[in-house]
Amino acid sequence: MKGAKVRMFESPEVTLNLSIKNCKFKIKRDDLLPDFMGGNKVRKNRFILSSLTSLPDVIITNGGAESNHARVCALMAARLGIKCHLVLHGEKDESDYLHGNKFFIESTNAEINYVNSDEIARTIEAIKRKCELQGLDVFVIPGGGHSLDGARAFIAAVDELEEEPDYIFFPSGTGATHAGLLAGVKKKNWKTQVVGISIARQAERGIPAIDELYAPLCAELNIQHRVEDIIFLEQFTFGGYAKYNAELIEFVRRVTSQTGVPFDPVYSGKALYGVTQLLEKAKIPASSKVLFWHTGGLLNLQSSKAI
Amino acid sequence: MKGAKVRMFESPEVTLNLSIKNCKFKIKRDDLLPDFMGGNKVRKNRFILSSLTSLPDVIITNGGAESNHARVCALMAARLGIKCHLVLHGEKDESDYLHGNKFFIESTNAEINYVNSDEIARTIEAIKRKCELQGLDVFVIPGGGHSLDGARAFIAAVDELEEEPDYIFFPSGTGATHAGLLAGVKKKNWKTQVVGISIARQAERGIPAIDELYAPLCAELNIQHRVEDIIFLEQFTFGGYAKYNAELIEFVRRVTSQTGVPFDPVYSGKALYGVTQLLEKAKIPASSKVLFWHTGGLLNLQSSKAI
Repeated sequence: MKGAKVRMFESPEVTLNLSIKNCKFKIKRDDLLPDFMGGNKVRKNRFILSSLTSLPDVIITNGGAESNHARVCALMAARLGIKCHLVLHGEKDESDYLHGNKFFIESTNAEINYVNSDEIARTIEAIKRKCELQGLDVFVIPGGGHSLDGARAFIAAVDELEEEPDYIFFPSGTGATHAGLLAGVKKKNWKTQVVGISIARQAERGIPAIDELYAPLCAELNIQHRVEDIIFLEQFTFGGYAKYNAELIEFVRRVTSQTGVPFDPVYSGKALYGVTQLLEKAKIPASSKVLFWHTGGLLNLQSSKAI
Repeated sequence: MKGAKVRMFESPEVTLNLSIKNCKFKIKRDDLLPDFMGGNKVRKNRFILSSLTSLPDVIITNGGAESNHARVCALMAARLGIKCHLVLHGEKDESDYLHGNKFFIESTNAEINYVNSDEIARTIEAIKRKCELQGLDVFVIPGGGHSLDGARAFIAAVDELEEEPDYIFFPSGTGATHAGLLAGVKKKNWKTQVVGISIARQAERGIPAIDELYAPLCAELNIQHRVEDIIFLEQFTFGGYAKYNAELIEFVRRVTSQTGVPFDPVYSGKALYGVTQLLEKAKIPASSKVLFWHTGGLLNLQSSKAI
């Protein structure tokens, strides 16, 4: 029996009623992963904790003040009855207003440390040392679940797909989702193009972060490793993480109006914008089987900033 | 084939790790109903629309400015490709801040009319008349899904339960959930006590609203109708809809910390507070099988008001 007793659920795969260039559009709705309020961070963290040989006493992780990853870790630790320390950067919202991830993070007994970005590593180290001196078994989850096990969660996720798509598109952030999907597709010997739409980073920073996980996964799975296989499109970031303009919001509204599926301008709405741009510019053959992976994170809406 | 092509999903039933007086606590997580962002309004509205002999061209409904019901109707109409008019009361948030139900309601092409409470009925009537003059088939969904079909959704929901509980507790609001659960239990000849914890109304107003639906359901199902069977506890409202105090927030945090399940102070957290009070005061026999019905609506957090 592995460490965590967190039930594994699949997410629904449904047809998306979006007609662009006759593509058959399907959507993998990780936003609906049923527990811990959904999203790809649920998939990653339950895999990470389930892969441990025994459950630690304490987990420590980091993220932004409104982090989806932090919310999932805090709720998961609560369920498992273990302690959670969160090292959060960015502004602490001091208002009484109850909202978003903040409310649910603070609803758990996770201990929260707000720090500047340059103090994250040092703070994690200090908490770790202190816990270990108390004889506690500590496990540090990298921010965003950016780890080999986080990526392996998406190798497993590819097995949930009903058929081989021609393209998988998704919001590409810190890299574990991207590395895992790509390795998962290669492992199945599929010809699927795995295309990450960057939601924040430029390729110069984004690709090495993906390859840091993809390269060892290739070695492990006996897959030929080629950095060129990492397709990471940087032209749809709208200036950076959680930034948006009126055109993006207008787009998000249009696709929700057409589909009844909630999209946000931070992750999946931004990435889908990129996908439709590519499709409209005919860079993708008509009648392709397109799968869009909705990675959730809708509770992080309020960190969006107009540009 | 009935009107709506909205897939029916069940919600998970899980054990809640809350130990109070040795009760075996289970929770029915309608917050995780996988589509339209979950909650009991999904269950009601998909039942309401599926019960129509043909899909209307237009639905009209009403609710508060941050209404979960309005969000579900707007997304569902978008999925079905039909027009949705929302008549919303309460303050329109004019900030640029992207959050909660408002963002997702506005993400659809629902037409929104903000009005004062005393103008709701007249506004609905005017929209209806205008649409009908255009030759459109119009269906008005009562606010909150408060209708016989809304209640029937919960008669069907009782069939999803794994076993007969001794008690079903749940947040009781406008009445359809309550009427449906009670009728569902009676239909199965269960001895289950169906106990609604009022999240807003006093019994004087709450019970007649439930009975307005319960009485005709009893006639339809050939169940003996007794108003006394409606158990609606008014002592845990914290002063009214969405109102809370520090003790309630503290409680919500404690249960989330113990269970990893998100609760809010508007609906399920408030109701669960009432349940634990009852259990702690030993008004419920130890070792009872208790089912708590989590009705979702977590995106409405931001209308909460401290008292």
